[in-house]
Amino acid sequence: MFKKSMIQKLILAGMGAGLISVPAAAAPSADSSYIFNTLLFLIGGFLVMWMAAGFAMLEAGLVRSKNVAEICLKNVSLYALACVMWMLMGYNLMYAGVDGGYAGTFFSLWTPVDADTSAGYSSGSDFFFQMVFVATTASIVSGTVAERIKLFPFLIFTAVLAGLIYPIQGAWKWGAGWLDAANFQDFAGSTLVHSTGGWAALTGAIILGPRLGRYVGDSVKPMPGSSMPLATLGTFVLWVGWFGFNGASQLALGTIKDAQSVSNIFVNTNMAAAGGALAAVIFTKLVYKKVDLSMALNGALAGLVSITAEPLTPLPLSATLIGAVGGALVVFAVPFFDKLKIDDVVGAISVHLVCGIWGTMAVPITNEGADFFAQAQGVAAIGAFVVVTSAVTWLALKHTIGIRLDADDEERGSDLAELGMEAYPEFGVGSQKF
Amino acid sequence: MFKKSMIQKLILAGMGAGLISVPAAAAPSADSSYIFNTLLFLIGGFLVMWMAAGFAMLEAGLVRSKNVAEICLKNVSLYALACVMWMLMGYNLMYAGVDGGYAGTFFSLWTPVDADTSAGYSSGSDFFFQMVFVATTASIVSGTVAERIKLFPFLIFTAVLAGLIYPIQGAWKWGAGWLDAANFQDFAGSTLVHSTGGWAALTGAIILGPRLGRYVGDSVKPMPGSSMPLATLGTFVLWVGWFGFNGASQLALGTIKDAQSVSNIFVNTNMAAAGGALAAVIFTKLVYKKVDLSMALNGALAGLVSITAEPLTPLPLSATLIGAVGGALVVFAVPFFDKLKIDDVVGAISVHLVCGIWGTMAVPITNEGADFFAQAQGVAAIGAFVVVTSAVTWLALKHTIGIRLDADDEERGSDLAELGMEAYPEFGVGSQKF
Amino acid sequence: MFKKSMIQKLILAGMGAGLISVPAAAAPSADSSYIFNTLLFLIGGFLVMWMAAGFAMLEAGLVRSKNVAEICLKNVSLYALACVMWMLMGYNLMYAGVDGGYAGTFFSLWTPVDADTSAGYSSGSDFFFQMVFVATTASIVSGTVAERIKLFPFLIFTAVLAGLIYPIQGAWKWGAGWLDAANFQDFAGSTLVHSTGGWAALTGAIILGPRLGRYVGDSVKPMPGSSMPLATLGTFVLWVGWFGFNGASQLALGTIKDAQSVSNIFVNTNMAAAGGALAAVIFTKLVYKKVDLSMALNGALAGLVSITAEPLTPLPLSATLIGAVGGALVVFAVPFFDKLKIDDVVGAISVHLVCGIWGTMAVPITNEGADFFAQAQGVAAIGAFVVVTSAVTWLALKHTIGIRLDADDEERGSDLAELGMEAYPEFGVGSQKF
Repeated sequence: MFKKSMIQKLILAGMGAGLISVPAAAAPSADSSYIFNTLLFLIGGFLVMWMAAGFAMLEAGLVRSKNVAEICLKNVSLYALACVMWMLMGYNLMYAGVDGGYAGTFFSLWTPVDADTSAGYSSGSDFFFQMVFVATTASIVSGTVAERIKLFPFLIFTAVLAGLIYPIQGAWKWGAGWLDAANFQDFAGSTLVHSTGGWAALTGAIILGPRLGRYVGDSVKPMPGSSMPLATLGTFVLWVGWFGFNGASQLALGTIKDAQSVSNIFVNTNMAAAGGALAAVIFTKLVYKKVDLSMALNGALAGLVSITAEPLTPLPLSATLIGAVGGALVVFAVPFFDKLKIDDVVGAISVHLVCGIWGTMAVPITNEGADFFAQAQGVAAIGAFVVVTSAVTWLALKHTIGIRLDADDEERGSDLAELGMEAYPEFGVGSQKF
Repeated sequence: MFKKSMIQKLILAGMGAGLISVPAAAAPSADSSYIFNTLLFLIGGFLVMWMAAGFAMLEAGLVRSKNVAEICLKNVSLYALACVMWMLMGYNLMYAGVDGGYAGTFFSLWTPVDADTSAGYSSGSDFFFQMVFVATTASIVSGTVAERIKLFPFLIFTAVLAGLIYPIQGAWKWGAGWLDAANFQDFAGSTLVHSTGGWAALTGAIILGPRLGRYVGDSVKPMPGSSMPLATLGTFVLWVGWFGFNGASQLALGTIKDAQSVSNIFVNTNMAAAGGALAAVIFTKLVYKKVDLSMALNGALAGLVSITAEPLTPLPLSATLIGAVGGALVVFAVPFFDKLKIDDVVGAISVHLVCGIWGTMAVPITNEGADFFAQAQGVAAIGAFVVVTSAVTWLALKHTIGIRLDADDEERGSDLAELGMEAYPEFGVGSQKF
Repeated sequence: MFKKSMIQKLILAGMGAGLISVPAAAAPSADSSYIFNTLLFLIGGFLVMWMAAGFAMLEAGLVRSKNVAEICLKNVSLYALACVMWMLMGYNLMYAGVDGGYAGTFFSLWTPVDADTSAGYSSGSDFFFQMVFVATTASIVSGTVAERIKLFPFLIFTAVLAGLIYPIQGAWKWGAGWLDAANFQDFAGSTLVHSTGGWAALTGAIILGPRLGRYVGDSVKPMPGSSMPLATLGTFVLWVGWFGFNGASQLALGTIKDAQSVSNIFVNTNMAAAGGALAAVIFTKLVYKKVDLSMALNGALAGLVSITAEPLTPLPLSATLIGAVGGALVVFAVPFFDKLKIDDVVGAISVHLVCGIWGTMAVPITNEGADFFAQAQGVAAIGAFVVVTSAVTWLALKHTIGIRLDADDEERGSDLAELGMEAYPEFGVGSQKF
């Protein structure tokens, strides 16, 4: 792994001096750029798809064993459902001009995907990449409302979120809508993806209410997760997936400049996660005297969410600090929501909503083209829209088919109640112990 | 993540009007195409290699805890063994003209891998990609015959499957053999990989017999898997690996057309899995009143197997439906095999064989170049060949070294019997409870 | 998946005969090469980053349940810390001429990452790839010293290792230092990464002492790992990550030659792991009568470490054998270290140090440009340097803040002692049973 750069510098110096000749045309052909751009979407896309596994493992690790099978089922089916809704409605709702825009909603299903090559990348690869993003948004909700929500109402909410709420607000920015015109900046979705998921989760948590026995007077009963290694695994999966999430949001790899940008995004994404994890380790040690693993995991995720609105312009040290602020925020946000008796099983509101806002507001720190007011406008507008539409959806479900397990079912666990099975039939004793 | 397409369309419009000039030669250089093609194999290859982890986790989650360590060992060693057999025999058996064909079997080990560049990709990358495919075939068998088969007979069967059975039938199509000449279509291996594994598993399950106590009279004793989150993880791993499995089976990425094809394959692969998972959720709810997680997982895999024979030509909605049919088939196939008292621990026969056949027969629905008869011919020919050769191998092993654990060993579990260890020594109580 | 090579051969034959014309210029443009090179670093980088999850799962599976949460925390925070130290110091220490070299240590944080394009790849991508390597080195240590070391002393050691020890010895070879001048060959780091981690682990294990009750007289008390499937998962994660580790250490993908080299590296990396796993299966069966799963896993890893010093020049069969020797070495090294009462919880010294040395010394077998003496010189020099600097660090920590949990805390487990939590609160009964 000897670094070639010195030799190559010599060669390039030789070129510069006219000693070595190279073909004049140095830029990639249009076709090569097209393939590079497409490949970026495909690689980014499978990495983001992989995040679905990360959410599944994180949540499976952080719920009690009596609800593990149900949370696994929710994660698999919400991903599948979000993809189907995206195909049926979301893509066309979000991107005006795609296959005829709003009017052409169902049209894309019946025509070949690649009509022309003028976009500079395969539209199939873009469709794929955008599809896995909406699944991420949906994944955020499931952790917060776990252990007490019924399966089918949750899936119906997911369908509404993926098919309507996400693409409509997404169109405001990424569909070149009014927030884009207003100079709102959100590179890979601190607000569009993470806050949106976070607001939907917050609304759901309030309307659902806390788990039985979670808050007794002013005290919070700990309900520790059933498997910390699975939660750790989930965090690592999300971390690696985030390289695709942020990196491929550059949307192009066909020029040297794009390749440099994607590289810087990889570095900054990693540093922000590192900063978030370390900040959470340090702050939990300072505040609680003991380091908390689930906080450290959420700290890493907080760093990732924080850098997502602007992973390109920060220098690596700035990215580390932006992530570290996110990690610290989570340490204080988690008990804050508990004080409000808003029960968030995995801490997703703290991670995705609080740090999504922080990351969005931090964009002007390193990006001269962004301004504080436009960022606040975007955060507020999308927040208001998602809260209202989510609340309407949750309340409609609550007053029709109901959204909450009855007390008995919650007590014995959603696995037995809704699936008739146990996640760990041989060693799970959760229903007795907790 | 603002979509660049509109700007780029403007630029391209400018080009069209002669306002902006670009170099005339737009196609990638031959060298760039070579590198793109090679890169596709390498990325596809590591994704398919990763599927070995998926099978391991799926099976570790679906067997009882007393057999978890053994199934892990089987998965690691079958992957290793399949690769070695592929290197020693399989690659040359399958691809006539590779390094001298049948006669040159061992020759490739002693000559540099890349003799020339005329194939348009590095032969090493192709060797790698094909190698991980044979490992997939072998992985399918281990789940079905788990919990009662002895380790070394299983590994010997794996060696025969990887070194002889798989490459011989594979040569009929992908080695440009008689099924290829007969217009049999199997893009990425619904039949060549999945049905082959499935037939071998079915033959093994019949010859081995069911687990002790599994069938009592007409009733089936449930033997639930020990860890549903691991099974869920395994499913997600397989899902993400399948993008490599199907996507890189395009075998080229060096042109715009190929990039579009790979993109469409990614979309269709994802949609088929989504369709399969949702269909299984819906059908288990309808048929059994409760949603079944392991069925949902197998539904996703069923969708993936179903689309594997033709992931390119379907529109996304068609792919979703092809996958959904697969997911529904599994819901009915699993109890069907139980009715026949064919004991398939993880449902692999239903997923890989039944849906492999379905996917292969479905090719003509979307691919005008395929015909029903040729598809049926391929399914039947490969089925007959694999059943006969597998049966001979299983029976030869049964009547020499024996293939089945004795009853005592099966009772206390293969982990203690064959490995002298426990997978979960601190909380596994499986041997008492089940 | 019909192989296109035959058709392409025909086309190329047509070209040769002048029947089909192609553009004359076949080499990729300089820009395309730049993008390919950068992309290799990015893909390799996220694969190596993923190895952090592999180490976490391997170690979480191999420690007892009372120490699982702590080992998870260590793996997350050591990765984060190693990245930060690399950013702050390591990169500049290791690569003279990078951003002003030693003097410019902090400078890189304040200047844009890509000053020029003369290196032939984005410096951000290189920075990222090298960063995840140092994290790997740090990961090796945590497994060996698990179950008895305190958290913060461990993290301080990690900071010293990542910020000083690793980059200084790394500069001797990859920074174009004296070992490079002396023709020491270490392609992807059998010595620079794996032995370095192994020596640091060995020194730590000796200074820390064994776990309480591990060695009683001449007998070794087994302390089996808590979750074999997690250990298996970790091994597969490491295996897939190693394609990036070795493959991207080619450092370039912009020419046909590089694409062929990366392909051959993928093949050899896979074959060495396969050889190592099978050798461990066979040797544990021969020596202990029972196959040992953790040995098989370590055998695969041993094969990977063994091929890392030279994954390019061996033919596939040679790579298999080099890996198999590594797998066999581990089977004998693990009890050897136990005989010396050096307590290595996961076998990392056997895997990374012993096989790191073996792999480095094996380079001259297949690489004519290497010589035995230069290899021995590198192994010895780096070994001496790492042992001395690690020992100084460990001893300084021991005699100041202390490195070892007190006996009570070790007894009840580091999870309760240092984190105040349990990894498996509902079914872990480890503190009673072991």
